[in-house]
Amino acid sequence: MTESVSAYMTRLGQAARAASRVLARTSTGQKNLALSAIADALGEDREALVAANAEDVVAATAAGLEPALLDRLTLTPARIDAMINGLKQVAALPDPVGAVRDLSARPSGIQIGKMRVPLGVIGIIYESRPNVTIDAASLCLKSGNATILRGGSEAIRSNRAIAACIQKGLAKVGLPAAAVQVVETTDRAAVGALITMPEFVDVIVPRGGKNLIERISNDARVPVIKHLDGICHVYVDEAADLAKAESIAFNAKCYRYGICGAMETLLVDAKVAETFLPAMARRFEEKGVELRGCERTRDLIQALPATEADWSTEYLAPILSIRIVEGLDEAIEHINHYGSHHTDAIVTENLGRSRRFLAEVDSSSVMVNAPTCFADGFEYGLGAEIGISTDKLHARGPVGLEGLTSEKYVVFGDGHVRS
Amino acid sequence: MTESVSAYMTRLGQAARAASRVLARTSTGQKNLALSAIADALGEDREALVAANAEDVVAATAAGLEPALLDRLTLTPARIDAMINGLKQVAALPDPVGAVRDLSARPSGIQIGKMRVPLGVIGIIYESRPNVTIDAASLCLKSGNATILRGGSEAIRSNRAIAACIQKGLAKVGLPAAAVQVVETTDRAAVGALITMPEFVDVIVPRGGKNLIERISNDARVPVIKHLDGICHVYVDEAADLAKAESIAFNAKCYRYGICGAMETLLVDAKVAETFLPAMARRFEEKGVELRGCERTRDLIQALPATEADWSTEYLAPILSIRIVEGLDEAIEHINHYGSHHTDAIVTENLGRSRRFLAEVDSSSVMVNAPTCFADGFEYGLGAEIGISTDKLHARGPVGLEGLTSEKYVVFGDGHVRS
Repeated sequence: MTESVSAYMTRLGQAARAASRVLARTSTGQKNLALSAIADALGEDREALVAANAEDVVAATAAGLEPALLDRLTLTPARIDAMINGLKQVAALPDPVGAVRDLSARPSGIQIGKMRVPLGVIGIIYESRPNVTIDAASLCLKSGNATILRGGSEAIRSNRAIAACIQKGLAKVGLPAAAVQVVETTDRAAVGALITMPEFVDVIVPRGGKNLIERISNDARVPVIKHLDGICHVYVDEAADLAKAESIAFNAKCYRYGICGAMETLLVDAKVAETFLPAMARRFEEKGVELRGCERTRDLIQALPATEADWSTEYLAPILSIRIVEGLDEAIEHINHYGSHHTDAIVTENLGRSRRFLAEVDSSSVMVNAPTCFADGFEYGLGAEIGISTDKLHARGPVGLEGLTSEKYVVFGDGHVRS
Repeated sequence: MTESVSAYMTRLGQAARAASRVLARTSTGQKNLALSAIADALGEDREALVAANAEDVVAATAAGLEPALLDRLTLTPARIDAMINGLKQVAALPDPVGAVRDLSARPSGIQIGKMRVPLGVIGIIYESRPNVTIDAASLCLKSGNATILRGGSEAIRSNRAIAACIQKGLAKVGLPAAAVQVVETTDRAAVGALITMPEFVDVIVPRGGKNLIERISNDARVPVIKHLDGICHVYVDEAADLAKAESIAFNAKCYRYGICGAMETLLVDAKVAETFLPAMARRFEEKGVELRGCERTRDLIQALPATEADWSTEYLAPILSIRIVEGLDEAIEHINHYGSHHTDAIVTENLGRSRRFLAEVDSSSVMVNAPTCFADGFEYGLGAEIGISTDKLHARGPVGLEGLTSEKYVVFGDGHVRS
């Protein structure tokens, strides 16, 4: 391109800001029509999508991209169908925008309430999966936000082809082209520009590895919805139903090792450890999960010694650290100290301790008698998620449509004045 | 002190984090008892407070503090009563912590809801008013947060005396002393430390001039709830009741010139300008408000010429800029472009345009037929406010107890697993 990257990004930003004003007043019906029209375009242009993606795959293979990332990059017919279904699902979700709550009268005569509104312009920075382009665009569009999407350079041809379908859909229903923009340059300076334009971009959602997210958070001058570690715990209380505890802990670890909601540390109350741990350990061993235990754990079962570093490690692998604790206080203390404020669970039949666990564990999701792997936007009924936030302000946990909005005060008077 | 400022602040931070765990599980009743006990202590130690404050005032007078700031610094008996009443009012407010909303069952069998929880540790940085110490401490305590308060060095003796009363109250009900900590050093490095300890501090609320807030925002590594400009508009629509418009615009400007909700620019639809502006201008002139108008305004009334800079100036003074616009679109465009996303109002009897104004003006408070000076935590029924946020994420507008909390997901199962 002839213009500089920064001039290009400024142009995208200005166009996104203008489009966000239009989206803020677009009806739910029209947004849903746009989502359907984009789904139709993906169906019609299936061959072009596959062809563009094949070029990306060839180039990435030649460049030596590792197999796991190559797999993520590849658009199969099933993945295109999943994108189309995803669009239809988002169209079917209730629109959060415009809802007014707590509208009530004040002694002065005015009425006050809170109205849910779009954030404005959302920048998404992600790596190889081209399907994120559709997931993110659909959630942002439905919540009335303009989007600037910056995918990985290895997926640029796929993303351009998907962007063409999005443009077709937007044009069909008369929405501005800048409602969804895909950054067309692979120049890294584009990311630097995107995260430092608070006048045009209201929030950044980075999706990718911890390094990417930390780098973006450090450099951004725009708020970032972050997802860092998922160091998740299951605590087996003295009043646990041990059969439930075993299936919950097993599922929390083994449902899928690589997800952020996977359990990394199992905490067991000393009062039930001797009864609980041997059978539990056998199940993990049969599954090939490596166990690393505290000293007291290793008195009861075979396990490697856990080091201090283990308590704060997100394995994302068939490895589990196990620690025996003296009751609820020590469990909560451990979780708040070593955990990542993501998702933590207690297994207990005791009401009082379950209530304390919910109130005192400082994590975005706290669970009673359920495995941590349930931490997921689809499982939570959000329809889809743009990410899982480990921040404390604004959205915590899986971020769906509501997390892409905020609330403003609305005030109604009839000529009332302040005296 | 013998320890370094950074070691001192780390110690405060660690103690605050530990206290925040206790506060997270403290009952509403006990928090209210603490607020009452602090109120009692202020009443009992009235003389010590006045004496400590008198020393601050003498020192500040000698140091040449300007009269407006000296006035803010002074603790009169009426101001001590106001602090005591404020504590009682906060005690009477409903406790937001622990409320669970939208608890509902999912197809998997688990139940999901959102629970309101404290943010954790809140750092407050403010200037000369010692009453902020009580306002901020009471709101943070009621919402279950630990607080670190850093007041202005000119109020250090007053703040220490107030802190002693807070400590008495906390001790009386058995809450940890570190629930509310006043920074005892006037070293500026303490602020630098406070805003760069994300492990101990969850959010910073700076209260003061724009320069202070911008400096803190730029240097902070902790989220900051910001209040920048209040460039507020009243738009008089073609369907306005012009009598209401006149009293609303007059009140919005003249209720108090120095508050952030004061109107700085009046926008008038060209269709009613000729009828509306001459009488309106006479009222402002009688009150001594300087008018600065666009060219078309100056064809109708006497006013100085408004420059481009006027549209983005927060006067906080008896000065008003006036612009004639061609209808709602131009008004919204002007507000979103030149305003500060604080508080803006439309005067109209037309339902459709009032709805568009509410949806499309991108400000933390949007009003219909009410003056912008209503933007205030007390007027909104929050009981008190810790500040007014011009951010878009998390809390927007006046920030009360709810803005000092966030929501986490709570999940209930009965041994359900993910399949």
